[in-house]
Amino acid sequence: MILVEQFNNKKLAAEAAVTYIKSGMTVGLGSGSTVNWMLKKIGELVQDGLTIKGIPSSIKTETLAREYGIPLTDFSNVTTIDLAIDGADEIDDQLNLLKGGGGSLVREKIVDAMASELIIIADQSKIVSQLGAFSLPVEIVPFGFELTARNIAELGGVPTLRKKDNRVFVSDNGNYILDCKFDNIQNPKRLHEKLKLLVGVVETGLFVGMTDKLIVARNGKIETLVNTR
Amino acid sequence: MILVEQFNNKKLAAEAAVTYIKSGMTVGLGSGSTVNWMLKKIGELVQDGLTIKGIPSSIKTETLAREYGIPLTDFSNVTTIDLAIDGADEIDDQLNLLKGGGGSLVREKIVDAMASELIIIADQSKIVSQLGAFSLPVEIVPFGFELTARNIAELGGVPTLRKKDNRVFVSDNGNYILDCKFDNIQNPKRLHEKLKLLVGVVETGLFVGMTDKLIVARNGKIETLVNTR
Repeated sequence: MILVEQFNNKKLAAEAAVTYIKSGMTVGLGSGSTVNWMLKKIGELVQDGLTIKGIPSSIKTETLAREYGIPLTDFSNVTTIDLAIDGADEIDDQLNLLKGGGGSLVREKIVDAMASELIIIADQSKIVSQLGAFSLPVEIVPFGFELTARNIAELGGVPTLRKKDNRVFVSDNGNYILDCKFDNIQNPKRLHEKLKLLVGVVETGLFVGMTDKLIVARNGKIETLVNTR
Repeated sequence: MILVEQFNNKKLAAEAAVTYIKSGMTVGLGSGSTVNWMLKKIGELVQDGLTIKGIPSSIKTETLAREYGIPLTDFSNVTTIDLAIDGADEIDDQLNLLKGGGGSLVREKIVDAMASELIIIADQSKIVSQLGAFSLPVEIVPFGFELTARNIAELGGVPTLRKKDNRVFVSDNGNYILDCKFDNIQNPKRLHEKLKLLVGVVETGLFVGMTDKLIVARNGKIETLVNTR
């Protein structure tokens, strides 16, 4: 007889991160399936008296946060975010991230960049030795997207215009997303800079040097890595 | 008795540039008051049998080009632009440009960047020894614009959110524009790169190293400067 234990590692990582949230904080709320577990937990704590203000990083997160009763605010009302908690599609051993599979990379990066502390939550499947197995999402201006795609191809990527239900996918900011396959990303900082400097590129899904803490759940166990840079 | 001669230098520069347009070309159509004279002239030549296809760099230019009967195309139909002709708010002696007063800098930069040759047309008032007397337009994502403005201020600029008729001005791409006063811009390339790399920045109005030819009209006389880089 084999005993099979099943762990919800996303939920475990999310709930471990929530312990860092204290009353009075302005909290950046990331996006994605792991973050959704966090929103549920924060909603429960708000019911129990936790007083925070959340800044959502996507329309999906905003909708879900409202359902869970999390009080929200926006950039017109705050000048600092105490803590942001977000997910990622890939995380390397320097805690650099590849993000944007969900299509909200610009808002996520704005919220994460503004936060005094950024905690990334993930299950073990997101940990990689090198970024790039996942296609890199690059948000671009719709006008002239064909030119921008060609310029990205010259940098060695194979861009595919993201579609949804047979129509071009449009981001929360009204832009397009090119999912760009790079065989492997040896220098995430340099690639990000080259891409971002292209005319027509709004932002890339490479989050370099931003993570302060990584909380990863592996077979039901929590590991916390702190970026010591 | 004093003889006062009045020259329409914008019109003169525009009409001198149009002589470089040949039948069969795909032509990038810039934006602004000098370019409008060009559109009028191209419209006349099209009436007389010139066969070109124009790619407009702003909604205003598109509307005006249609009125003048200029055949238009877009990026889904062409892979090259033979020649783009555009204006500028300031031009330095390296032929670097400060653009975007009209609010179409992203589309202008995409069209100008794609062109095999870029001709800039201007009257003498646009020629400066150093860029920066004019506030530098920076197009940004609306979400979190307060944060982006603070980040630009840290680079030494004084950003003002552009408004029109008491409402926030929205670009052709649905973005905001910060008009950023830098006392003087000593290194346009470096400032452009620092700004463009900020999260939330879509594009800046600094067009560095892009001009191939400058046609400037001064007191009724045409000067043509060729970028020999």
